[in-house]
Amino acid sequence: MSLFQDTYDVIVVGAGHAGCEAAAAAANMGSSTLLVTMNLQTIAQMSCNPAMGGIAKGQIVREIDALGGYSGIVSDKTAIQFKMLNKSKGPAMWSPRVQSDRMRFAEEWRLRLEGTPNLDFYQEMVSGLLVENNKVVGVTTSLGIKVRGRSVVLTNGTFLNGLIHIGEKQFGGGRAGERAATGITEQLLDFGFDSGRMKTGTPPRVDGRSLDFSKMIIQPGDDVPEKFSYSKETSPLTNQRPCHMSYTSPEVHDLLREGFDRSPMFNGRIKSLGPRYCPSIEDKINRFADKDRHQLFVEPEGWDTCEIYVNGFSTSLPEDVQFKALRSVAGFENVKFFRPGYAIEYDYFPPTQLKHTLETKLVSGLYFAGQINGTTGYEEAASQGLMAGMNAHLKVHDQEPFTLQRDEAYIGVLIDDLITKGTEEPYRMFTSRAEYRTLLRQDNADERLTPRSHKVGLASEERLVTMEKKRKQSDNLVKFFEHTSILPEEVNDILKERGSSPMRQSDKMFKVFSRPQIHLEDMKQFKKVAAYIDEHSLERDVLEQAEIKVKYAGYIAKEKANADKLQRLENIKIPDNFDYSKLKSLSFEAREKLSKIRPTTISQASRVSGVSPSDISVMLVYMGR
Amino acid sequence: MSLFQDTYDVIVVGAGHAGCEAAAAAANMGSSTLLVTMNLQTIAQMSCNPAMGGIAKGQIVREIDALGGYSGIVSDKTAIQFKMLNKSKGPAMWSPRVQSDRMRFAEEWRLRLEGTPNLDFYQEMVSGLLVENNKVVGVTTSLGIKVRGRSVVLTNGTFLNGLIHIGEKQFGGGRAGERAATGITEQLLDFGFDSGRMKTGTPPRVDGRSLDFSKMIIQPGDDVPEKFSYSKETSPLTNQRPCHMSYTSPEVHDLLREGFDRSPMFNGRIKSLGPRYCPSIEDKINRFADKDRHQLFVEPEGWDTCEIYVNGFSTSLPEDVQFKALRSVAGFENVKFFRPGYAIEYDYFPPTQLKHTLETKLVSGLYFAGQINGTTGYEEAASQGLMAGMNAHLKVHDQEPFTLQRDEAYIGVLIDDLITKGTEEPYRMFTSRAEYRTLLRQDNADERLTPRSHKVGLASEERLVTMEKKRKQSDNLVKFFEHTSILPEEVNDILKERGSSPMRQSDKMFKVFSRPQIHLEDMKQFKKVAAYIDEHSLERDVLEQAEIKVKYAGYIAKEKANADKLQRLENIKIPDNFDYSKLKSLSFEAREKLSKIRPTTISQASRVSGVSPSDISVMLVYMGR
Ligand SMILES: Cc1cc2nc3c(=O)[nH]c(=O)nc-3n(C[C@H](O)[C@H](O)[C@H](O)COP(=O)(O)OP(=O)(O)OC[C@H]3O[C@@H](n4cnc5c(N)ncnc54)[C@H](O)[C@@H]3O)c2cc1C
Ligand SMILES: Cc1cc2nc3c(=O)[nH]c(=O)nc-3n(C[C@H](O)[C@H](O)[C@H](O)COP(=O)(O)OP(=O)(O)OC[C@H]3O[C@@H](n4cnc5c(N)ncnc54)[C@H](O)[C@@H]3O)c2cc1C
Repeated sequence: MSLFQDTYDVIVVGAGHAGCEAAAAAANMGSSTLLVTMNLQTIAQMSCNPAMGGIAKGQIVREIDALGGYSGIVSDKTAIQFKMLNKSKGPAMWSPRVQSDRMRFAEEWRLRLEGTPNLDFYQEMVSGLLVENNKVVGVTTSLGIKVRGRSVVLTNGTFLNGLIHIGEKQFGGGRAGERAATGITEQLLDFGFDSGRMKTGTPPRVDGRSLDFSKMIIQPGDDVPEKFSYSKETSPLTNQRPCHMSYTSPEVHDLLREGFDRSPMFNGRIKSLGPRYCPSIEDKINRFADKDRHQLFVEPEGWDTCEIYVNGFSTSLPEDVQFKALRSVAGFENVKFFRPGYAIEYDYFPPTQLKHTLETKLVSGLYFAGQINGTTGYEEAASQGLMAGMNAHLKVHDQEPFTLQRDEAYIGVLIDDLITKGTEEPYRMFTSRAEYRTLLRQDNADERLTPRSHKVGLASEERLVTMEKKRKQSDNLVKFFEHTSILPEEVNDILKERGSSPMRQSDKMFKVFSRPQIHLEDMKQFKKVAAYIDEHSLERDVLEQAEIKVKYAGYIAKEKANADKLQRLENIKIPDNFDYSKLKSLSFEAREKLSKIRPTTISQASRVSGVSPSDISVMLVYMGR
Repeated sequence: MSLFQDTYDVIVVGAGHAGCEAAAAAANMGSSTLLVTMNLQTIAQMSCNPAMGGIAKGQIVREIDALGGYSGIVSDKTAIQFKMLNKSKGPAMWSPRVQSDRMRFAEEWRLRLEGTPNLDFYQEMVSGLLVENNKVVGVTTSLGIKVRGRSVVLTNGTFLNGLIHIGEKQFGGGRAGERAATGITEQLLDFGFDSGRMKTGTPPRVDGRSLDFSKMIIQPGDDVPEKFSYSKETSPLTNQRPCHMSYTSPEVHDLLREGFDRSPMFNGRIKSLGPRYCPSIEDKINRFADKDRHQLFVEPEGWDTCEIYVNGFSTSLPEDVQFKALRSVAGFENVKFFRPGYAIEYDYFPPTQLKHTLETKLVSGLYFAGQINGTTGYEEAASQGLMAGMNAHLKVHDQEPFTLQRDEAYIGVLIDDLITKGTEEPYRMFTSRAEYRTLLRQDNADERLTPRSHKVGLASEERLVTMEKKRKQSDNLVKFFEHTSILPEEVNDILKERGSSPMRQSDKMFKVFSRPQIHLEDMKQFKKVAAYIDEHSLERDVLEQAEIKVKYAGYIAKEKANADKLQRLENIKIPDNFDYSKLKSLSFEAREKLSKIRPTTISQASRVSGVSPSDISVMLVYMGR
């Protein structure tokens, strides 16, 4: 009798953000699922900053939630501060972000997974895959235990041959204080996979009791905090813990420079690329030599703990240099370290080896999600995990794959970018990566995604009903504005006050509301509007939806039209075994890249780097379009 | 500038139960203290069973609390179930025990330590000691950082060259999923220390959702739960989670025996000794071959988690054997493993190399506490940590050492046993190890220890006041019983009911109460008693104290007299550099052992194994007594 009698539908390796979402999704859809991880006490550990969301990442968390993942709910329940970033810009830019209680975040995840049906747990290191005829059939552990599975999702994060650097010292490890995972990379190379190395870094953790916050700028949360989850299961914070801000200075930079000759980044010891947009502090002062200061965000690690995360001071300089320099920052004169910052190098697998489902092209039933695909960030990892978990379940149950397009979700953009373009440096999401960001807003992820997820069996009926009610109510409210007229004498005072030109004759409310100077608060001053809201008990999110639909109607319509154009190319499928070598009129580069990436649609082909519009024309002609 | 500018008074290495108490004690007494540990996320991790206290161990937790340590408070705050064991026996045997929420236990410890003044934290592996002229002056870390300290407390637990065994497999580790610590043993050997190997084991953790509790016997907590801490900071539980019990069977034993040839315990791969009184299940069926079943306690790991600890099934048999056998236990037919049981071998240092203060004899200012001294158990570890932390503080501040005698505390017995007799197998506390267990009760640890700890600056004024009030109230109540008479007609009905012979003439209440059949509940039926209790608002603990003082007056007085006799020998100090080689009339063995152990008093000398009463006479004569 083996420890595992059954063949699992889905085995998820690793319980970071990717692994947790993958396991939850597969299990919730009905797959018998096993989550194997090196240490069950470190489930959903936040390896770096204690925060979820932020620009573009907040949108992803909302999308995960709309699809029925857990990250939004867990983040809401364990938040110590909420901020809607970019609130002064248009709604396409609004990005929710929370500070999290690191311990509670991990605990909440663990308890939630324990409460998930069909999901088993096992603590051990996975050291290899069981593959038969290019099909994955399970995993082997370091104890030599074989676990059979119809599909496997690998989410090893930074652990694969992880190597930690601080100054001139280096040692193996998956994270500070945890061991690296070995064996998997080597086996995948044997199967014919390509792997690469990347690096990422983290700042020192310090003792909040040693800081002088009076010398810093306080950063409170939003006055009216919102939340991530569309479900009723969570509520906005009623109490928040503030963060603080301080700055580096020329003096700090000089002190850091003293360690440059011992920096693994600059002396060549670290060869791999780190996240361009989360650079280390040494990188920042090097690349932006003219800037004489950089912001540091001083973030508490939880409600009660005195541990502080020094956001912006990621570094792998020698620990004495880190310390000396940080002591010169205002408020940090007497700082004490809990642990120094460090950099870590790890193996990743260029994601062009994946399909849109995140299944590998080489081994059937094998999925990769998270940092192993060359991404960085919890949100990026979690969303890939969710998609991989869903698709593993669907494949095992012979159902259609579930993929998202670039005009449907940031998650669609993320995965399409990864598998089509690959990435040489840790990939993080930005709003600028999305062509249709007016469509992909944080406020409408439920409308975009809940119906699709519900259809394949993940998002619950309840979520669908909640979403539909919200949509209907906001659509009705928009209609009300479209159909209800208003007289100049009713509105001109307000218009004047807001600096908007007066009306000359009666017009629809929609028209008034469309004016950029007029906000919902102004509209509410009209008795008819107030009465309508009251009568229908409309909540904040419905009003906001309606406001966005009114004010951005034009932009939204335009982007939709563009997206529909794209859709036409998206609908032109390229056969699985399309033979590019026959298309002599393709450029050499295009032929090579296309043969490697094997895009599934003409639209995806057009995004492969090195493929020109004329190459696309050649293909269209060849395919008889 | 180094990461640590200052010389710390006390550096504590390791944040297990020993390290946490050591750090808290030293810091609370006013020493600038640094707690260095491999992973700040695993502070006060319960490596094995999620429980504190139990027979003799519960008494230790009460003593730690009375001295001003944290283990009692943390245990109270994170308990999910309370039981006073042995309640049917005399009060010397009463032993409090709680089931703990493992995650909350660790979290509560961490937050408490963060709230402790003078205490800094640092995450890294300590790889060596800094020693100058046989005096410790600090530690070095794996990054090569030197931290200066006037004293160092080593509490490495099972981590020193830890080697994990499961069946025929073995791999390095300090605990499952954590890495071993290296370097320290090797260096201590160079300094002239002796080291040895011990082993301990742990059972599998399983998924509570896979168990059928209806086939087990429920084990609820006490109806009226008490608590560990004498302070007002905690309250008894108002809600408890039950445990369950099941049994192994001949079938289970047969299945386990199938793995014996692959057992590291039986095939000679593990050579070191394990805890005799926490034997593995294979040990039990081997040693007690005639017993056809063994109890298994099925203990939840917390309030909300489904993880279950299978107490009594500790094993290092191959994981498939563990699994197959456990599946044959009633209620475990469909059990799923979170992780298999395993054994771990680790280095310890025979504790005869220590003084009563837990300072090493070889290196001044260096203290050892916990599993490193060959003990097993959280409580044993915590109490040593507390004593080592106190003494490190006192030494650094040129104050008298703080030690406890065998008639003062189980902690005194523990340390005296360790340093006088040493131990070849993991040492755990039993009531039978204490000569004066009627004095060393769980109910009076505050009276015994709080005044002494307060005097040296650890136990707070508040604790002292609370204790004194309790003592005064119970003494007064005893006096009241001694002075208040009662008439036969008042009491004879009750006596008859309780099966106690009737009184013939008026007598003091004390006399009545002394009778074994009469309990406080009976006494309360007398109006005068009820009125007294009411008038003085006496609480449960005061009444219990008075009852014990009345009922056990005789035993207590007798043990006190015995203890005082011992005290006479205890007062005869042996000079530090006493030259045993000169005492030719000592037996050879005594001369050798005494020269090695170097007892500080004649009383301690008498406990050294191989030292006979006639050897003691020789010494007394020589010393002119
Ligand atoms: C030092 C450091 C700095 C970082 N800095 C940043 C930053 O600046 N910005 C940013 O956005 N992100 C940063 N990150 C990245 C962020 O933490 C990750 O992107 C995110 O956690 C990835 O999630 P994941 O699920 O892919 O992997 P992880 O969160 O790393 O989880 C991997 C999980 O897999 C388990 N595991 C690994 N191998 C095995 C195996 N063989 N068998 C069983 N279990 C296994 C591990 O125990 C772990 O539970 C940093 C990470 C680290 C470690
Ligand atoms: C597998 C297993 C089974 C056990 N079974 C039983 C049992 O059946 N019954 C029983 O009573 N007890 C059992 N125990 C023992 C119980 O867990 C210990 O007695 C108790 O935890 C010892 O406490 P400690 O503080 O001495 O060490 P630990 O709790 O082991 O803590 C040691 C600490 O030191 C840190 N550390 C170690 N080396 C270094 C270093 N070089 N640098 C920095 N930090 C370091 C570690 O990270 C850890 O925080 C078991 C323990 C294990 C691991």
